[in-house]
Amino acid sequence: MTAPRGFQAGATACGIKTADSDKLDLALVYTPHPTVAAAVFTRNQVKAAPVRVSREHMDEGEIRAVIVNSGNANACTGARGLDDAREMTNAIANLLALRPPQVFVCSTGVIGKPLPMERLRPGFDRVVASLSDDPVPASLAIMTSDTVPKRRAVRLDIGGREVRLGAMAKGAGMICPDMATMLCFVTSDVAIDKDCLEALTRRAVAHSFNRITIEGDMSTNDTVLVLTNGLAGNRVIAEGTPEAEQFHEVLLDIMLSLAKMIIRDAEKATRFIELTVKGARSEEDAHRVAKAVANSVLVKCAWNGGQPYWGRIMHAIGYAGVPIEEDRIAIDFGPLPAARGGISAGTPVAKLREVTDQPEFAITIDLQLGDAMVTVYTSDISEQFVDFNLLD
Amino acid sequence: MTAPRGFQAGATACGIKTADSDKLDLALVYTPHPTVAAAVFTRNQVKAAPVRVSREHMDEGEIRAVIVNSGNANACTGARGLDDAREMTNAIANLLALRPPQVFVCSTGVIGKPLPMERLRPGFDRVVASLSDDPVPASLAIMTSDTVPKRRAVRLDIGGREVRLGAMAKGAGMICPDMATMLCFVTSDVAIDKDCLEALTRRAVAHSFNRITIEGDMSTNDTVLVLTNGLAGNRVIAEGTPEAEQFHEVLLDIMLSLAKMIIRDAEKATRFIELTVKGARSEEDAHRVAKAVANSVLVKCAWNGGQPYWGRIMHAIGYAGVPIEEDRIAIDFGPLPAARGGISAGTPVAKLREVTDQPEFAITIDLQLGDAMVTVYTSDISEQFVDFNLLD
Repeated sequence: MTAPRGFQAGATACGIKTADSDKLDLALVYTPHPTVAAAVFTRNQVKAAPVRVSREHMDEGEIRAVIVNSGNANACTGARGLDDAREMTNAIANLLALRPPQVFVCSTGVIGKPLPMERLRPGFDRVVASLSDDPVPASLAIMTSDTVPKRRAVRLDIGGREVRLGAMAKGAGMICPDMATMLCFVTSDVAIDKDCLEALTRRAVAHSFNRITIEGDMSTNDTVLVLTNGLAGNRVIAEGTPEAEQFHEVLLDIMLSLAKMIIRDAEKATRFIELTVKGARSEEDAHRVAKAVANSVLVKCAWNGGQPYWGRIMHAIGYAGVPIEEDRIAIDFGPLPAARGGISAGTPVAKLREVTDQPEFAITIDLQLGDAMVTVYTSDISEQFVDFNLLD
Repeated sequence: MTAPRGFQAGATACGIKTADSDKLDLALVYTPHPTVAAAVFTRNQVKAAPVRVSREHMDEGEIRAVIVNSGNANACTGARGLDDAREMTNAIANLLALRPPQVFVCSTGVIGKPLPMERLRPGFDRVVASLSDDPVPASLAIMTSDTVPKRRAVRLDIGGREVRLGAMAKGAGMICPDMATMLCFVTSDVAIDKDCLEALTRRAVAHSFNRITIEGDMSTNDTVLVLTNGLAGNRVIAEGTPEAEQFHEVLLDIMLSLAKMIIRDAEKATRFIELTVKGARSEEDAHRVAKAVANSVLVKCAWNGGQPYWGRIMHAIGYAGVPIEEDRIAIDFGPLPAARGGISAGTPVAKLREVTDQPEFAITIDLQLGDAMVTVYTSDISEQFVDFNLLD
């Protein structure tokens, strides 16, 4: 987050994750410079209070600070939740001499419980005082059931100017045991037009975070924010230019690598699967088939067991709600044909299992109906996942 | 199955479930009398060979026999699968002096492997020889991962005549580890018009088997067959008559009780949940919300742990794809309010847990948007379920 010029980050512990613990759970990102920002929020109709407040602020303000707490999602908390989210932005705005709409707020954690403001309030001073060039504490403070922090930093040359991007994300399980949310923050010193940044952000999210699934549940708090301050001094990037494409490629690369990190860190999962559906009549069809397969609990159970059970994949394709022709479908595990023409390709199961026994492997489904293709990234489901989510 | 006049059933062991075992895995139901039949098949686009053959036979023939094997679904088996299913109906037709389209065929079990016909063939004679008034062997022979057989028999008076119905079903997990399929067979000696029987069957299935979900996966083999031979001697029931309503009520009662038996026997599940969504704008909306909640892996994990986590229910409502107003939603666990106006109702968690700790409980979601209501029946998901589905 601090790789681009003019950005700082910090974090502190407020005892929200666990009372009386020194686990970091309040993070702040800040740039004192004028910014251009783009954000994408959850499409879940049940929206957390910070999502509602941050949307307002995106409309009204020019974002210069992002305050994030973990351990409590501030979702399904009604009017009090909105008050609490606004108090967070007001407090940070005061301390940084900003207007409240210049502060973006996110929360991640248990749904339906009010934020413990008495524990948060003393943290505001501390988190502002902690601002520095070190991106590590903030990336730790947004973690919930994540087992590793997720960061990326990239440099690129745009018109002879070095442009930098930094990013952090969280979400081990898009939904965690008590912990809801996928969050991603990208900072950059690029100079870019607002419409262009919004369009590139939407495109990059569609091809990265919207292409991963762990258990198919969509959180109430999912947020992706891209915040740029123009300090790289490049000519302002506008839509439809080669520079816009250049920036898009890097933005997509960053988001996709963070999205893959989220899947690799999926709650208690043991396998990383790259699932490609090709030969579809449209990209939407391909995506629906991919989601049906990737979200099938029984397909995931088979993956957990390292089993090349292509029949379960066939049955999930069949209920995806997309017109298919059963006797055209081909399924490959890695380089090996598992099904051809909708029936067994004759490859010995033991041979196929050499692929599906690996911690990472690719599956390709060819519907043989058209030219559209989509790749999604997903994980298996494990006994430990269920245990982890019992909330005992 | 044999409670109505003129029906017999039988079963034998062919070593399909387990080679060299005496587990019953081939069942036969037979009536020598003219029949009226109605059938409902899976909407999965990947359809097993017996589903394809039985659909043809429903169009062409007048069904007098039903042959069912367990242990192999004969799904994703291509032309050979169709040949095998036809060989089954031909063989049974020969032995019972019927035409092949008078034989209905079903299979349940692993997907993608050809039927072991060399083991099935010797069973055809034996299963015909086993026909008797005892419904038990057939109900055992159709079981896969079911732990108990599922049967019902009912008598009712229609216009002064005693009409009898018998039924059996299977499906512990609509999809079982290697074993795909929910099957239900209802026999009756009622005299009924074909159009009327078809309409009543569709209605009864819509309000019973289509209202249950275990893991949200739709099988390639699901089949419900209602077979009647008119021996009760009542005046033939036609659509729109009080007798049709009378018969519908009993048919629905039988199907609903079998559907609930399937959920109670859900693979490795520990809880039975009656989930009602009311206050919806339409029945379709109510059903979509109910399915989103009932199929949420994380909601199911919470139920498994006996946890009254209403926040997860809210988040599943939010992604059901139905317009909602978050601040109107009420959620009750049993008689206790958990959420009101989209936020906590203030009932202590320990109090709510007294409900959700029970093996059976009711959840009511009130969207407060209209008058439509739907009740579905579902189960939790357990660690053992995942283990059971690893296929190790």
